[in-house]
Amino acid sequence: MTSPSNRRAHVVGLGLIGGSVALALAEHGWIVTGEDAVAATQLAAQQRGLVTGVDRARDTELIVIATPAGSVAAAVASVLATVGDAPVVVTDVAGIKGAIGDAVHDARFIGGHPMAGSEQRGLEGARADLFRGCTWVLTPTAATPPDAYGRLHGWLRELDANVIALDAATHDRLVATASHVPHLVAGALMNEAALIAESDGALLQLAAGGFRDMTRVSAGDPAIWPDVLTQNKVAVTAGLRSLRERIAALETRIANDDRAGLMDELRTAAIARRELPGRAVPSAELTHLRVPVPDRPGVLAQVTMTASELGVNIYDIEIAHSVEGQPGVIFLAIEIAEVDRLAQALSAHGYRVSRDEE
Amino acid sequence: MTSPSNRRAHVVGLGLIGGSVALALAEHGWIVTGEDAVAATQLAAQQRGLVTGVDRARDTELIVIATPAGSVAAAVASVLATVGDAPVVVTDVAGIKGAIGDAVHDARFIGGHPMAGSEQRGLEGARADLFRGCTWVLTPTAATPPDAYGRLHGWLRELDANVIALDAATHDRLVATASHVPHLVAGALMNEAALIAESDGALLQLAAGGFRDMTRVSAGDPAIWPDVLTQNKVAVTAGLRSLRERIAALETRIANDDRAGLMDELRTAAIARRELPGRAVPSAELTHLRVPVPDRPGVLAQVTMTASELGVNIYDIEIAHSVEGQPGVIFLAIEIAEVDRLAQALSAHGYRVSRDEE
Repeated sequence: MTSPSNRRAHVVGLGLIGGSVALALAEHGWIVTGEDAVAATQLAAQQRGLVTGVDRARDTELIVIATPAGSVAAAVASVLATVGDAPVVVTDVAGIKGAIGDAVHDARFIGGHPMAGSEQRGLEGARADLFRGCTWVLTPTAATPPDAYGRLHGWLRELDANVIALDAATHDRLVATASHVPHLVAGALMNEAALIAESDGALLQLAAGGFRDMTRVSAGDPAIWPDVLTQNKVAVTAGLRSLRERIAALETRIANDDRAGLMDELRTAAIARRELPGRAVPSAELTHLRVPVPDRPGVLAQVTMTASELGVNIYDIEIAHSVEGQPGVIFLAIEIAEVDRLAQALSAHGYRVSRDEE
Repeated sequence: MTSPSNRRAHVVGLGLIGGSVALALAEHGWIVTGEDAVAATQLAAQQRGLVTGVDRARDTELIVIATPAGSVAAAVASVLATVGDAPVVVTDVAGIKGAIGDAVHDARFIGGHPMAGSEQRGLEGARADLFRGCTWVLTPTAATPPDAYGRLHGWLRELDANVIALDAATHDRLVATASHVPHLVAGALMNEAALIAESDGALLQLAAGGFRDMTRVSAGDPAIWPDVLTQNKVAVTAGLRSLRERIAALETRIANDDRAGLMDELRTAAIARRELPGRAVPSAELTHLRVPVPDRPGVLAQVTMTASELGVNIYDIEIAHSVEGQPGVIFLAIEIAEVDRLAQALSAHGYRVSRDEE
């Protein structure tokens, strides 16, 4: 790894997320170049000092594709064509991972999705601290070089993101519930209210904190969504159908004066909401878990995804390579309180885990 | 009106809203008594200094019923029985107004609904500033004495609430869209996510800002909802059905790759959300509008509701009584920029409005 001051990154697509990535990396000492298909955006980014230039350097370590989901695969192919066989890490920020992963066939690409956003749109809304405390999903595959994953994980941790690993299909299925369906519902609630407000102006004065909270995301840039929604069609339509069924069941309960049933539904939701984990911060001391791994494809993905499934945060990940006849070792920095849970789960997958007594 | 230091109020039901009303009134110099059906709550409120005692004084000017919607009418009857024919103003805070108005037959009762809440529950969550900037709906009727309305409006303005007048039926129809349906949807989104998280623990780590915003209200106390939902059955079930239809239409658009249609829906919502009015603060100079009114029932309600329909905030309202042969006058403090709009609408209803040149 080059020293911090020499690290070079290149960002393709300088909107809200791409611009924020550029700002955040620059704040951490990277030399950042960038490009945008819109000349005015490109110029604005340079004038704001957000990127130093347009050209990807041959020694770029990190390339971030921050275009809408539908054009990520083509953009990855394009950047990889210009850097040849350089040991670069390429990642993206799109809200859908399966279709992109299927379309890219280069192990230097590791899909990513920072779960951060803003009602601000475009470059003007870009902020260096947008990713602080956010969950940043990476989707390593069996082909992902552990070293590349470890580097990318570390760089994103520097931005104070909480990095978790999921396989692309799981990511897509889960974000349908956690993000895509809620986003559509926010829009539907807002459109319904706007329609009624046409004849009843007082409605908007009744739009209190709860309504404002529930519709806030709908103010964001709509342009990213058609790609995401159509590429995640199966999971999103299933999620919407499932929500419709829940709503229909509530209608029935209300129509039948089923007060106990309503109370039960709302109490269950209240308990679940209060238990929703907050932002991941090392609340306690960290320790290193030592995981000797055979030198075969897929172990990095399996180890990191096992942690994600348990909700165990990996604060740092390092890879010590195998020497002949010996396994390599993955070191995971996690909270001491989580050691037993993760060690057990990894043991169940056949790994021989130990606390690292440095 | 007695001097501020002698004003007495009584609050029935010392939960989140009742406790906050007691705190807010006390902060503005009222002597506040209060009662709660639960002895421990009653005691806690006294120990916290939130109310000075249990007994409603004969000279109480304001009684606030802050019990669940289903028991408001009985509580109103009970307090009125103890104060005889005293010129008290009685109001409530329930989220539904039609059924309560139908059940109370005393002009001293003016239905109310502060559109404020909190994820905190009960007395522990009570805060003196809960109503700062909130919309507080009052539902005057033709029988409401303008004086009583003017006093209540002024007291609530002291708490920094934005007071608007709606008829009870309109209130109920509009809060179904602005509050009841969104609340149910927040619960449904949370329950759906919790269900999926049982098998996919990583889901909760993907619950980013948008999801947290959209489910926040579901953490509130569920106990107030069965009354509200069943008493507002027609509007709530209609609102839920309407939302289901919107969701079904989105499913069809996604299934058909109708990107333009999706973009259109989301863009409409984004524009509406960005235009949602913020908190009402006198952004400009206020002026007084002078509205001579015939001395007949219903004019107060009509004048105040006309302002609400236009989204015009009334910052202060004063009533000068008619002398023989002359009409009375209602003085409305509104923003100068709103004068023409409101004057026009009132003229259309036959009022002869003028700017008050004091």
